[in-house]
Amino acid sequence: MIKTFGKHYIVDYIGCNKDIINSIDDIEEIMISVAKQVNTTIISSNFNQFYPYGVSGVLIISESHFTIHTWVDEGFVAIDMFVCDLDIDLDKAVELFKQKLQAKNYKIKKIMRDNIL
Amino acid sequence: MIKTFGKHYIVDYIGCNKDIINSIDDIEEIMISVAKQVNTTIISSNFNQFYPYGVSGVLIISESHFTIHTWVDEGFVAIDMFVCDLDIDLDKAVELFKQKLQAKNYKIKKIMRDNIL
Repeated sequence: MIKTFGKHYIVDYIGCNKDIINSIDDIEEIMISVAKQVNTTIISSNFNQFYPYGVSGVLIISESHFTIHTWVDEGFVAIDMFVCDLDIDLDKAVELFKQKLQAKNYKIKKIMRDNIL
Repeated sequence: MIKTFGKHYIVDYIGCNKDIINSIDDIEEIMISVAKQVNTTIISSNFNQFYPYGVSGVLIISESHFTIHTWVDEGFVAIDMFVCDLDIDLDKAVELFKQKLQAKNYKIKKIMRDNIL
């Protein structure tokens, strides 16, 4: 039986604020804040600071996951949002991240996760 | 300056073994095993059992992340592999997951993470 299991937004942000995206505290706060503002339920939060620069982090949410990786020198941030609840407003989340990362621009790929071959 | 930050494989597996994909222990072992077999460096491992069915999990690796979500009733598994080291053999990982999940079939989307608008 054909079924859709979730929607997945793959977002690359360009020209982000380098101080923000090198701060594990800022990045974790931003991820949790956006996840809550779009009404996901956070199960676990796991962030890691890389040296000399950069942060990686993951939220496992009831609805699947949010991930983030930052490249400080280049002002680049890669975010994934995968949610099994199709009503969650990921377009709102994309704009919230743009504001909070102070990104100049971004691009999105939107993918459905399904069993259609 | 145009730059590629990583490659990202989005893989949906169909017809998986339901006992395996409902076992948090099996899923964590499979994820760690495949990540090691393709020479990534695991930084953290975080898995969660859902009730009545299903497992979600994330590996943060030095090279970015692996994630997995399973839908047991449907035999469906969604895996993401995002690596900043382009030499990592994700095609090998795709086949290893197919074997270990005993999947009948799968589909892949391959995406480059870059700052090209």
